[in-house]
Amino acid sequence: MSGAGGFARTPKPPYYAVIFTSHLSEADAGYAAMGETMFALALAQPCCLGAETARGDDRLGITVSYWADEASILAWKAEAQHVAAQKHGIARWYDHYELRVARVERAYSGPEGRDLG
Amino acid sequence: MSGAGGFARTPKPPYYAVIFTSHLSEADAGYAAMGETMFALALAQPCCLGAETARGDDRLGITVSYWADEASILAWKAEAQHVAAQKHGIARWYDHYELRVARVERAYSGPEGRDLG
Repeated sequence: MSGAGGFARTPKPPYYAVIFTSHLSEADAGYAAMGETMFALALAQPCCLGAETARGDDRLGITVSYWADEASILAWKAEAQHVAAQKHGIARWYDHYELRVARVERAYSGPEGRDLG
Repeated sequence: MSGAGGFARTPKPPYYAVIFTSHLSEADAGYAAMGETMFALALAQPCCLGAETARGDDRLGITVSYWADEASILAWKAEAQHVAAQKHGIARWYDHYELRVARVERAYSGPEGRDLG
């Protein structure tokens, strides 16, 4: 689930994170709809724990989605690729992207000092 | 190292990621300088592999720094806390933040299809 203010309300670790860093191409017509589709697609998956996203004026964006396990990520990947193919691929939207799959081992909240680790 | 276009040039996994999601308070005077200081401080650490950052108009930002090992993260954490204390804490800049430490297990680049995993 996504909590207040754009933060994902994730459980106590361990869980998984997919870190997607991307730079939009100049020819990004239609990206907003595509981005929203992919973001909603992740959040609609049964095992998606939440997601957070930010993109600055320099067109560099970071979206992190959180998952209960790796099997859930693979299921989402297959569905996302299917949707992307229907939309004629994602190469037209991105100059470049990096996608990293990581296992979250510790987590902290602040500035009030709540510790989820 | 940070590569072209704001992307971190990370090695083949495994390595570690610190995912810092934050929402700026309204009273964020001085944040830009503080944020740059902390970002530069991470990149200056011997074992920092790079970092990526984005913040949108909604004041939600995500910064991900990459590290060779957990010991490097702890060393950086100690130094960052020291600097933050000198700057009178970080509570004045953030309404809320979430910090997650994760082990990157697979990585992919695109859209050209290069696979670092």
